[in-house]
Amino acid sequence: MIDFLSRRQAVAETLSAAGHKYILVTDLKNVRYLTGFSGSNAALLLDTDAGLTVATDGRYDTQVRQETSGAPGVDIRITRDLLGELRSVAGTAGFAVEPGLAVAAARELGDPPILEGAVEAARLVKDAAELEALREAGHLADSVFSEFIAAGGIREGITEIEAAADLEHRLRSAGADGLSFDTILASGVNAAKPHAGVSREVIVPGLVTVDFGVWLDGYASDQTRTVCVGEPDSLSSELYDLVHRSFSAGVKAVRPGAGLFDVDKVCRDIIDEAGYGEYFVHSTGHGVGLDVHEAPYAASRTPRDKTLAESMTLTIEPGVYLPGRTGLRIEDTYIVTAQGAESVNPSSTALQVV
Amino acid sequence: MIDFLSRRQAVAETLSAAGHKYILVTDLKNVRYLTGFSGSNAALLLDTDAGLTVATDGRYDTQVRQETSGAPGVDIRITRDLLGELRSVAGTAGFAVEPGLAVAAARELGDPPILEGAVEAARLVKDAAELEALREAGHLADSVFSEFIAAGGIREGITEIEAAADLEHRLRSAGADGLSFDTILASGVNAAKPHAGVSREVIVPGLVTVDFGVWLDGYASDQTRTVCVGEPDSLSSELYDLVHRSFSAGVKAVRPGAGLFDVDKVCRDIIDEAGYGEYFVHSTGHGVGLDVHEAPYAASRTPRDKTLAESMTLTIEPGVYLPGRTGLRIEDTYIVTAQGAESVNPSSTALQVV
Repeated sequence: MIDFLSRRQAVAETLSAAGHKYILVTDLKNVRYLTGFSGSNAALLLDTDAGLTVATDGRYDTQVRQETSGAPGVDIRITRDLLGELRSVAGTAGFAVEPGLAVAAARELGDPPILEGAVEAARLVKDAAELEALREAGHLADSVFSEFIAAGGIREGITEIEAAADLEHRLRSAGADGLSFDTILASGVNAAKPHAGVSREVIVPGLVTVDFGVWLDGYASDQTRTVCVGEPDSLSSELYDLVHRSFSAGVKAVRPGAGLFDVDKVCRDIIDEAGYGEYFVHSTGHGVGLDVHEAPYAASRTPRDKTLAESMTLTIEPGVYLPGRTGLRIEDTYIVTAQGAESVNPSSTALQVV
Repeated sequence: MIDFLSRRQAVAETLSAAGHKYILVTDLKNVRYLTGFSGSNAALLLDTDAGLTVATDGRYDTQVRQETSGAPGVDIRITRDLLGELRSVAGTAGFAVEPGLAVAAARELGDPPILEGAVEAARLVKDAAELEALREAGHLADSVFSEFIAAGGIREGITEIEAAADLEHRLRSAGADGLSFDTILASGVNAAKPHAGVSREVIVPGLVTVDFGVWLDGYASDQTRTVCVGEPDSLSSELYDLVHRSFSAGVKAVRPGAGLFDVDKVCRDIIDEAGYGEYFVHSTGHGVGLDVHEAPYAASRTPRDKTLAESMTLTIEPGVYLPGRTGLRIEDTYIVTAQGAESVNPSSTALQVV
């Protein structure tokens, strides 16, 4: 049972503290968080007493009533002019808007003040229903990947796209609502590109990096495993061992109160000291929830006062990419617990030779 | 070979006519259209002489150079502050922004004027490279669907998600870069929901509506087929025949100069006259290109002066949905030719019994 009222009250407090009577929420993930409604055209108005009006169009008449039936006292408006309808609900009291609202819409609404991160602040710490959904999504993806590898899903001679199609089919058949981002399955020199997608090239001996995730009941999974086709050569072994040490150190650093800058630094220092610092070209981690990338962020430019708290999520995903040669990344998504970190992707991160 | 310079010149003319020296383009599909660059973090500045500066971050250093190598004279800036960098390029001349820019970003830029639809107007009429990409995407999806049906992909007793996973695996294995939207595969009373997704329910005798599409080289396909599991009952036959007549009439109406309101009306009148008008709850069609839904639109509220021109695209997709009973939709994507309409999904739309 999702406690929508607590979520609304948390945002209402932020709203009150900022001195606004209403906030107009247009980010669809924020609408879903506060109401349960998952339609593709929606906006809502929340007041300082946690009263809520949601607007959508006629295509979603049935769905919005079904999906919000668990939330107390939601006022539903079916209309083509979502924002105009909600403006009239606010009346002369006025309202704040989210920073991502389109500038043309903001001007039509008379350029209201912006209130940044009001719903995102509530979303940062996951409640019980969210943690359960995140575990289910993570466990599903993790166990399917293990079966995929055991079945010989990655092997020399087939194309990257054939292997990815097999993995995605297994994820979908296991019940995933969809893929939470475009799969990366990168062999050979493609593994040296952190944002390689899936090519039509044939898989060759050496490291193959697979970054994949699913949607399940609105929540994302995000995980990366790197396997080796054939025995690793000395460079591949050295790099894997290095990234794995960085990854393990990062995981150990995850606990309530830990600084997010420091979690990044723990991972980055190990790679720096080995002389590969310039090839770790991205940040160490991000939160996972209704969005596959959301706060908190663990990066070298994260402010030093940002810390982890219990029931936040964070990926740990260091990587090294040597242009034109090879590369790899290892990634799990963690839930911050009272004691430390719980992986939602519990399969081994030791190098598997396939 | 894509003629990026012609595309830039078309937008530059619009820009000139609107009295601006520069436009800041932040819509990623518009960036791709004007430069070929497909990264997930990008913006560009185009001037009235069709000069172009594109900004992205360090992750895309190699990719942006590769993907824009076919376009003449692109100035590339690698930076974390994309919009600040492009603002400094424009200097004191100022610039217009697109309507979808986030309001917070617009305020940081000093609330520049909005120029709506400058790139979208150029994208409306597809050039030769685009038409080729759209045909390839449409033909791929169409032929894979025929194989899927022939192989018994839809049958009584398996779940909707199992059937969808099979179809999606075939699409991916045939070379699709991804799915252009969440597949709809709706059996039983789910077929009565125009926005049904894919459920975990078992497929039952009766109509099954499948709305699916792929990405190929940046372009989308969009197509719907409805099949019948077992012989159709009299209601299913009646509805299929009705929607098919509406669909065929819509296709015949597609030609250069045809009014988009009229194309919708031709389809809607047939369903209205049969007494099912209130159950055709969406519009008749939309363009398909770098976005799966883009201009032009054929709807009952489309202004009467909007007409089709050669090399535009349009879906024809009437449907009828009887809540709690059954429903169906038939959809192909068309290219407007000098003579009429070319389907990019040429398989038969006659009712197939599976």
